[in-house]
Amino acid sequence: VNARRFARLPDPFRMWRGGELHGAQIAYETWGELDSRRSNAVLLFTGLSPPAHAASSAADPSPGWWENMLGAGRAIDTARWFVICINSPGSCFGSTGPASVNPADGQLYRLRFPELALEDIARAGYEVLRTLGIERADTVMGPSLGAMVAVSFVAQFPRATRRIVAISGSAAASPFAIALRSIQREAIVCDPAWRNGEYDADSPPITGLRIARKLGTATYRSAIEWRERFGRRAFLETPGIRKVPFASDYAIQSYLEAQTRRFVSVFDANCYLYLSRAMDLFDLAQHRGSVRAALEPSGLERALIIGVESDMLFPILEQRALADDFEAAGISTAFVALPSIQGHDSFLVDVARFDPPIRSFLTA
Amino acid sequence: VNARRFARLPDPFRMWRGGELHGAQIAYETWGELDSRRSNAVLLFTGLSPPAHAASSAADPSPGWWENMLGAGRAIDTARWFVICINSPGSCFGSTGPASVNPADGQLYRLRFPELALEDIARAGYEVLRTLGIERADTVMGPSLGAMVAVSFVAQFPRATRRIVAISGSAAASPFAIALRSIQREAIVCDPAWRNGEYDADSPPITGLRIARKLGTATYRSAIEWRERFGRRAFLETPGIRKVPFASDYAIQSYLEAQTRRFVSVFDANCYLYLSRAMDLFDLAQHRGSVRAALEPSGLERALIIGVESDMLFPILEQRALADDFEAAGISTAFVALPSIQGHDSFLVDVARFDPPIRSFLTA
Repeated sequence: VNARRFARLPDPFRMWRGGELHGAQIAYETWGELDSRRSNAVLLFTGLSPPAHAASSAADPSPGWWENMLGAGRAIDTARWFVICINSPGSCFGSTGPASVNPADGQLYRLRFPELALEDIARAGYEVLRTLGIERADTVMGPSLGAMVAVSFVAQFPRATRRIVAISGSAAASPFAIALRSIQREAIVCDPAWRNGEYDADSPPITGLRIARKLGTATYRSAIEWRERFGRRAFLETPGIRKVPFASDYAIQSYLEAQTRRFVSVFDANCYLYLSRAMDLFDLAQHRGSVRAALEPSGLERALIIGVESDMLFPILEQRALADDFEAAGISTAFVALPSIQGHDSFLVDVARFDPPIRSFLTA
Repeated sequence: VNARRFARLPDPFRMWRGGELHGAQIAYETWGELDSRRSNAVLLFTGLSPPAHAASSAADPSPGWWENMLGAGRAIDTARWFVICINSPGSCFGSTGPASVNPADGQLYRLRFPELALEDIARAGYEVLRTLGIERADTVMGPSLGAMVAVSFVAQFPRATRRIVAISGSAAASPFAIALRSIQREAIVCDPAWRNGEYDADSPPITGLRIARKLGTATYRSAIEWRERFGRRAFLETPGIRKVPFASDYAIQSYLEAQTRRFVSVFDANCYLYLSRAMDLFDLAQHRGSVRAALEPSGLERALIIGVESDMLFPILEQRALADDFEAAGISTAFVALPSIQGHDSFLVDVARFDPPIRSFLTA
């Protein structure tokens, strides 16, 4: 059961930092109906790792990564909006990326995939809109990496959307976030199973990927939440759960292990490296010299910038600065700082707080 | 040139969590003179990784890890105090640990070293005092792991010190700190070169240790400091600096690499695993059922608890809670929250802020 559809990218698809793809495709899903004026499209970009399956549908009833936010009567109301979510190019859930076959030689791209930029993901979303006959989206939207892609979209494609919702994102990666992601990538490339990217599908660098994902998971939440949720409770022994030598004896370790298990079995290590590095490299100010100049020609009517006070990876000051730059660029901007305690991942789990501002922004 | 001296531990030395050591020794250094009443001793415990060389001296003029805090006229004034700093048992700078030879079989202990507890480190400090003929210290003191050891000391040895200074520590490790340390240890034990602890001295698990240390370094400071200090400045190419595939292009990465280089060449991986895990396991409330009960028989006259607002690893609320428990245990307690931006490591680098409260506490 799969609701995934595919759009062909222009051939060649010239990558932002050089190189090009041939015969590339983007996987996407949609919810709701495009209205007759093609004016009700909401284009949703994902964070680093999710697929295009943001919510369940008749075609695929399994819960999506933003299940409680998107659907009939939800904050992103599919009775009103035609919602499109794309799997990022560079990822491994149907879109062309390092784990795809290069049609030029029939081999997997692996490290022969060109350098990925968030600008390429934004452009892939733009091309999917074109494929669907949509000149202008009502709203582009995204959390985390998706928020950076969304701001890149408005900088690259003036007037291609009327509004933007950027959640827990930033105009550029901070040195702390770069440090943490660099360490994650180092754990992968230093796993001997990585083999300079030439690993077999049945023996991926799972050890490095597991360490990378655990570190991600550790920083996607907050110390306060974990204190309340786990404290110093004992390790939960569950069937099949791994425990390496010198592992901790506490519940937090079982949590990290459980969170990581599924991820390492579905996510391709090379794709992770490409996407992670693309986040580090992103800097909206590279478009026309400053964030404000990048945004000025956007033709945006309104912007909603949301952040969370407990986010250690994309601290709230980054969303505040982004909102100030939107305003300075002449765009009517709402800035919302939520008191969620779940850190960067709050948009996934504290949906009750995210629902009202997103609902009211889209409704207005 | 080395100012290190050695004290024999009682034989056998029974470890807190079981097992015992024979012929074990503790490396320590001293500064200043013990007065005739043997009443001016300050016992200093270190953080996870430093040696006993806290400051320079005539015998070893190289700068120590707390050089600007300790010396004649410094906040810890060696013209007045007889300062003793010990290398923790379990470490690898002269004290007995996993990298030492087990006299029972002439082999390195490696993983046959008994489980280490912070209580063992506290007791080693206590035994060094006895060796020097000191019944009661004026002050026990320590930052980070050393602060946890210091509170363990007062719980285990009532009336063995008159005062305590606990800096950027906690009564027990939080789940967030446990998570980060667990990931560090996993990086080491998953390095094939670790060989279940049986690596050769000339081929240690340097890759895992490097990832562990980088993650430590990333969390010992703060996002705010790095934003100001590094921003998105470019990677600094310096002779001999490594750059792995998918490394970041930014100055923060050169910094992490430079910080890590020296560490991995001097610190033993098994010792790191033991000390790191001992921090996770520590919980002062295990002494007599609660932190307050642990402290009540201490005979302490005064306590100084210091923390830093930007510390993500040992957040300020942990020092505040510790100070409240000291006060509740009937001990006259000063709590100082410093606005340093350098995070957990502020005590090493923002000495100008730490100097006044420590100086005035010791002088009073």
